[in-house]
Amino acid sequence: MPANVSNPDFERTVRESFARQSLMTLFSAELTRVAPGEVDVELPFRRDLGQQNGLLHAGVVTTIADVACGYSALTLMPAAADVISVEFKLNLLAPGRGDRFVARARVIRAGRAITVCRADVFAIASGNETLIATMLATMMQRTP
Amino acid sequence: MPANVSNPDFERTVRESFARQSLMTLFSAELTRVAPGEVDVELPFRRDLGQQNGLLHAGVVTTIADVACGYSALTLMPAAADVISVEFKLNLLAPGRGDRFVARARVIRAGRAITVCRADVFAIASGNETLIATMLATMMQRTP
Amino acid sequence: MPANVSNPDFERTVRESFARQSLMTLFSAELTRVAPGEVDVELPFRRDLGQQNGLLHAGVVTTIADVACGYSALTLMPAAADVISVEFKLNLLAPGRGDRFVARARVIRAGRAITVCRADVFAIASGNETLIATMLATMMQRTP
Amino acid sequence: MPANVSNPDFERTVRESFARQSLMTLFSAELTRVAPGEVDVELPFRRDLGQQNGLLHAGVVTTIADVACGYSALTLMPAAADVISVEFKLNLLAPGRGDRFVARARVIRAGRAITVCRADVFAIASGNETLIATMLATMMQRTP
Repeated sequence: MPANVSNPDFERTVRESFARQSLMTLFSAELTRVAPGEVDVELPFRRDLGQQNGLLHAGVVTTIADVACGYSALTLMPAAADVISVEFKLNLLAPGRGDRFVARARVIRAGRAITVCRADVFAIASGNETLIATMLATMMQRTP
Repeated sequence: MPANVSNPDFERTVRESFARQSLMTLFSAELTRVAPGEVDVELPFRRDLGQQNGLLHAGVVTTIADVACGYSALTLMPAAADVISVEFKLNLLAPGRGDRFVARARVIRAGRAITVCRADVFAIASGNETLIATMLATMMQRTP
Repeated sequence: MPANVSNPDFERTVRESFARQSLMTLFSAELTRVAPGEVDVELPFRRDLGQQNGLLHAGVVTTIADVACGYSALTLMPAAADVISVEFKLNLLAPGRGDRFVARARVIRAGRAITVCRADVFAIASGNETLIATMLATMMQRTP
Repeated sequence: MPANVSNPDFERTVRESFARQSLMTLFSAELTRVAPGEVDVELPFRRDLGQQNGLLHAGVVTTIADVACGYSALTLMPAAADVISVEFKLNLLAPGRGDRFVARARVIRAGRAITVCRADVFAIASGNETLIATMLATMMQRTP
């Protein structure tokens, strides 16, 4: 177990919390990677997730980046903790055109109260990945 | 027509673009106000828009704030223009608990290329409104 | 004393902390208003605070906005608390051209751990004010 | 000359613009690296750049990050262009304690109008580097 991990069951904690997010089901999103300080969230393109030109909506891009950031932070928190998003900023870098989309989040700094994360979102089409957005997010630990 | 409006049909332009956003249909979201530099987007709570504790997902909060910001910017752009989100930052201020949610966006500064907007998102429950999030966003005009 | 104020000496607390910020002295900046949840920081233009075109540097604009936000948050914190900036985002809206500059910060939401603030920065020239920047900031309470 | 460089004299352009920033002189800041899409700005700690506890002020941290981002963007712009900051967001990750501070900026995506950059700021003490802040910034090309 890495030194920065305090919850040996972090993967189960993250997967159970993700499974309770009904929006992830609505979006057909999946947790494709859960490692200490690193979480990937992926979804297939669907027409009903579109903006005015039929591309993936910035709101969906933001959602998977936020979820990936939140769970990357949660992997490093104590077992009883929940994570809440304090704030995030997202820059859109390229149109949301692709067959699949993946948000890859990494913890930049895990503090006692505050964890800062970054996520890059990629569009995948014909096996090629294009960086379409990047997020910088602040997460907070909440203990019941 | 206000001095800062160059597209006399701005409301129709905004409503037609919004109607093409399939994600707005998926979310049962509505444009409830379209005025020069001011747009409101509203949606009812639904269980399938939830995060891990059953409250409205931050991704949905962000989506309606982004859409309201984008269209508030579009009201002040020339008729042929489209609007794209360059970036936005959202602070979450209170849990997404309510019967309905409304994002109210206002243009802070409309420039030739760049328009800066702010949106506040409110939860409505039993007729009371609670501010649950605030966004500061940068939008860009795109002319075909 | 307003209901949201827990430190009756908040003005003295803020003024003493501000006086210890040597950068404020270097910038000839002043605290021109200290009220519950509201702080203004002002400075005169000086040539040595310029960017490449001789206008006020975005870094100085950000600094007075950050300081005003931090102290607006501190007015609502307990007497023993210190305030630290978690993060902020600033949009630049107009060139930093003026005789004086004032950052006016207001608390949007004061929580137990986290306080969210907004600041607008104005350039003052010949008695006219122009909004040149706006900040959305997250502050944290720190108790020794 | 790298494919993404259109101004063969980019280093001179950047150094001349930096030299005109009087705030950089006031801060004793230096351009320590100018490469395509990559710029470092460095300064020594000085007591008069402090916040209330004598550490480097967040405003100074932001300033060198913004300057490094702006010039990293300018390295990839045409010879006649100037660069302006549209907006930036900075997360503070650790106290500003050190002998020297360096902001290292890299372009994430260079577009025709908009360039998105990231900067990490490190404190250097006894030869060790600590990441103290990270910025995500939007820059705009301005042609006279």
